[in-house]
Amino acid sequence: MTRAELIQSVSSQMPEKRWRHTEGVMQSAVVLARRYGADPDKADIAAILHDVAKYWPSDRQEQLLRDKALNDELLLYDKPLWHSEIGAYVAETEYGIEDTEILNAIRYHTSGRVGMTTLEKVICLADYIEPGRDFPGVDHIRRLAETSLEAGLVAGFDSTINLLLARRQVIYPLTVLSRNDLVKQLELEGEL
Amino acid sequence: MTRAELIQSVSSQMPEKRWRHTEGVMQSAVVLARRYGADPDKADIAAILHDVAKYWPSDRQEQLLRDKALNDELLLYDKPLWHSEIGAYVAETEYGIEDTEILNAIRYHTSGRVGMTTLEKVICLADYIEPGRDFPGVDHIRRLAETSLEAGLVAGFDSTINLLLARRQVIYPLTVLSRNDLVKQLELEGEL
Repeated sequence: MTRAELIQSVSSQMPEKRWRHTEGVMQSAVVLARRYGADPDKADIAAILHDVAKYWPSDRQEQLLRDKALNDELLLYDKPLWHSEIGAYVAETEYGIEDTEILNAIRYHTSGRVGMTTLEKVICLADYIEPGRDFPGVDHIRRLAETSLEAGLVAGFDSTINLLLARRQVIYPLTVLSRNDLVKQLELEGEL
Repeated sequence: MTRAELIQSVSSQMPEKRWRHTEGVMQSAVVLARRYGADPDKADIAAILHDVAKYWPSDRQEQLLRDKALNDELLLYDKPLWHSEIGAYVAETEYGIEDTEILNAIRYHTSGRVGMTTLEKVICLADYIEPGRDFPGVDHIRRLAETSLEAGLVAGFDSTINLLLARRQVIYPLTVLSRNDLVKQLELEGEL
């Protein structure tokens, strides 16, 4: 499958507006990858695929989480978390992506994880700051992303946690562990 | 040991200002215990002892966490979390408290835990709202505490998590799990 065919296939599975978001993530991910030393081609593929399952019906996502022995702890948490795990599964089984770095960048693009690779940080941060994003604090995150992948991501996770607090929604523990891990990385680097 | 002797012994281990805080927690804890059906006498004893180790030197607290096979995962997190675990240990070994409900109310008064008992909720919430407390949002928590132990506590944990986010400090995962558990309890009760 060529890159153009991949784009055609993935974009057909979501509303046009969401595809424009994906295009923004592709653009930001390549910029960040070059800036911070990840592979821009892998960043491009991961970005194209990161939201492939985002608009799949919930029951199809739920069934895959249960039937394919994926991370079904996610079922205890908000549905927007599910598509990352499903996306990695789809990338591997339907699009033949074998590169673990790309698959994990898709898998952890929403929650992060402890010990994120540079490519995982790039996709996760690009998802927060792509040009189409417009939420309170996004420009602050963009500014941090100019000089530190980790500082940008901490601010991104902070915005997610703040939103969940304000909405009285449960917080996925891995998001907090990811943020803690990045805070410690910044402390070690003396950036905080 | 009489209650007066216990008060004398515990109050001698902290600055006068902190003892006044403890007196406030004693007062609020008994009110909350009566309101929500916990044992007011146990609430009183737990409140007296909850901060007994708060002003112990850090190295003494650290040594106890390591040497007594207490929860030494706490050493990875901020020092203000340590005194709760130490406090339960001291209550048991130095003051002869054998009641598990009281010991756990001391142990989890900072972080909470999944499946908190009513007494644990009472002490934790009293610690947030005692009359001497003055932080942004405390009156909102006090109002919620009039009608719901869980809603008050969620707001309390939210204030702690917000403070840690603002200060770029790590968040103790159990605090988030405790809050999530209370949010789910409120959802089940239809209070959210």
